[in-house]
Amino acid sequence: MIAEIIAVGSEMLTPFRTDTNSLFLTEGLNDLGVSVAFKTVIGDNRDHLTDAVRIALNRADIVITSGGLGPTEDDLTRNCVADALGVELYKDPDTIASLYKRFAERRIPMPPNNEKQAEVIDGAELLPNRNGSAPGQWRDTLWPTPNGDMHRKIIILLPGPPNELKALFTDECIPRLAATLPPRFLAKRMLRMALIPESTVDARTAPIYTKFTDVETTILAGSGEIQLHFVCVKPTQEAAETRVNELAELIEHEMGDDIFSSHGESLEEIVLLMLEMRDLKLAAAESMTGGLLSQRLSAIPNASRSFHGGAVVYASEQKTNLAKVPFDLIEKHGAVSPEVARALAEGIREVAHCTHGLSITGLAGPGAGEGPDEGKPVGLVYIGFADGEDTQVKKLNLFGDRDRIRFWSSQHALELIRRTLL
Amino acid sequence: MIAEIIAVGSEMLTPFRTDTNSLFLTEGLNDLGVSVAFKTVIGDNRDHLTDAVRIALNRADIVITSGGLGPTEDDLTRNCVADALGVELYKDPDTIASLYKRFAERRIPMPPNNEKQAEVIDGAELLPNRNGSAPGQWRDTLWPTPNGDMHRKIIILLPGPPNELKALFTDECIPRLAATLPPRFLAKRMLRMALIPESTVDARTAPIYTKFTDVETTILAGSGEIQLHFVCVKPTQEAAETRVNELAELIEHEMGDDIFSSHGESLEEIVLLMLEMRDLKLAAAESMTGGLLSQRLSAIPNASRSFHGGAVVYASEQKTNLAKVPFDLIEKHGAVSPEVARALAEGIREVAHCTHGLSITGLAGPGAGEGPDEGKPVGLVYIGFADGEDTQVKKLNLFGDRDRIRFWSSQHALELIRRTLL
Repeated sequence: MIAEIIAVGSEMLTPFRTDTNSLFLTEGLNDLGVSVAFKTVIGDNRDHLTDAVRIALNRADIVITSGGLGPTEDDLTRNCVADALGVELYKDPDTIASLYKRFAERRIPMPPNNEKQAEVIDGAELLPNRNGSAPGQWRDTLWPTPNGDMHRKIIILLPGPPNELKALFTDECIPRLAATLPPRFLAKRMLRMALIPESTVDARTAPIYTKFTDVETTILAGSGEIQLHFVCVKPTQEAAETRVNELAELIEHEMGDDIFSSHGESLEEIVLLMLEMRDLKLAAAESMTGGLLSQRLSAIPNASRSFHGGAVVYASEQKTNLAKVPFDLIEKHGAVSPEVARALAEGIREVAHCTHGLSITGLAGPGAGEGPDEGKPVGLVYIGFADGEDTQVKKLNLFGDRDRIRFWSSQHALELIRRTLL
Repeated sequence: MIAEIIAVGSEMLTPFRTDTNSLFLTEGLNDLGVSVAFKTVIGDNRDHLTDAVRIALNRADIVITSGGLGPTEDDLTRNCVADALGVELYKDPDTIASLYKRFAERRIPMPPNNEKQAEVIDGAELLPNRNGSAPGQWRDTLWPTPNGDMHRKIIILLPGPPNELKALFTDECIPRLAATLPPRFLAKRMLRMALIPESTVDARTAPIYTKFTDVETTILAGSGEIQLHFVCVKPTQEAAETRVNELAELIEHEMGDDIFSSHGESLEEIVLLMLEMRDLKLAAAESMTGGLLSQRLSAIPNASRSFHGGAVVYASEQKTNLAKVPFDLIEKHGAVSPEVARALAEGIREVAHCTHGLSITGLAGPGAGEGPDEGKPVGLVYIGFADGEDTQVKKLNLFGDRDRIRFWSSQHALELIRRTLL
């Protein structure tokens, strides 16, 4: 079974917005064993959309539209699907009543154009929308193939706002699709690694995962991270999970400590968990990353159990004011030096009364270093990590623009903490 | 003239990746007066892609494909476009030579499948790719309309990697398209506002911009920000710019200080510029935002001229350790209180020896406040801003999840600085 997703709305044909609902829909469809073979974006244009629905019914078994179910003139999806199927729209009295009720509850009169949202494609089933006013619609149809046979097709109309679409698809569509499709048992796993080239991961893992022809393996490379996704379908849930876990175990054995997460947790979550399990308290002093590492850690709920905060020592004198780095050390070696990275990590640990101190100092560009840092290259970064007895300093030479250098520095800092605590 | 963009690649039909190249292409096409009417995503499937190219030639004047030009079996765009046009591919000897040269320069032998990248659609012009090995292709063709007339169509094949696609489109395609299309003079402006509801902006500005029927106005609402985009096309550049500036001036008059940026600068850039022009130095103490504000400011090159850094006082005791907040003040009023916001702003100003100190303290959730903050609601935030003489404290009641509350808090902090310095 293959599906087509049609995103409807002229705003998605501007330089400012793109369709993202399809990612969510694709995941749900894949879990049911349906592949998405086509995605189309169409503006609020009656001819274009009607034709696009016809094309989709010609080439896919399941067609899902998102958007164009509102009350305005521009909301044409109901009309276009009816035209493509050659059927009429009618106004559903129950939906009209519930629209009036919805407005009355908010004590505002309903503008008459809202009745448009009660228009139903003849033969369609309405799908209640608990987060908005426009219901979804589900229509089964028989559609001619090129050789004249009739094939069953399902067309589903969903509203565009993601919170409405997601709830409606999950609550109303997945159960109906599951009842239509053959039963299916699926297991998934994700392994995550940081700061390793994708080619290295592939070279080391391909000899293993290619032997698991019944497990679909996908390697995704993001910023400073590689993810291995495994999906397996079997006649029973247990059989699917056994296979996925067998493969994950062999890959974990091969990649060892390079894997930071066996069940999808983020690097921030893993670092916080490791600190908490060891009853450690971390403080950070960030120069060139300017709070990015702290921000990443504190974005996780309950981070304060092990991440205490620290200092953003962006200007040189703040390294002295906030983290007790002797100013003559900066004058002598420059702020971007192993000496200052060490003093910063030790200084912030002491000032914040934590068990561990981490520091990041470097040149993110675009300009070159000044004063005592003159001549040092953009991308030179030092990370310090102090535990009260010993202080490690790691030197990095990163490439790319300012954003990339800053993000990768924070990634290296997290990975340094993780590997040290292992 | 209308265009269709076809993004080719099975990875864009997974839950993990979506097409973003089309946003860049759309902006360039719009500037030339071409609207994008259709976007399609197709996997690496020969039949699907060939049909999609035919459909696109039926409904658009300009068809641009991205992706599928690599050397592997899965890279089918050249073949499918040739099939759709009913022409042959031939191997271009100059391109073969340059492929061998490219590999030789890197001292690696060229795998023979790379010769695939030298396959040219009969009648196409090659577009040199300075960032990669696969050249783009440009093919003019006559294509039958439903009534049998022949219409000129342009089909352009671009590589998928964004850095290759962008350079190739800008350097090779825009000049060729501009030469094909009628000459056109276009002016653009963007006004930006923070923390105002979209409906308020629209209610106040629509009476003005709707009178400028020759200027296209778009209102975009992002997180904590509203953008007004104006585009105008006229017979001369001067006439276009005059109209756009006339409209922008009237809107600036209406919205006054609500507008933070008249030429597209970000709120961070504006705040840094205002501080620098007044020779001020800012330090920040962030509790619940955990470095997010500092991160946003330090992401701007040369931020250190006016933003010095500060403290991430995520755990309560760090407010005392790093920003001299008396611990009994926290015990008495709770960390989320106007008293602590005031003391934090004043404390960080003093510790960092800056002219101005800013503080953010609040509850981002998901859990409720503890100890002296028990019973305070998630979304309660206090922002302090101290200049050495006077300290303002602003109370906010934000809604949404942790990420939203953190981001909006940083946005309110930037806007408080801007409005105070005006």
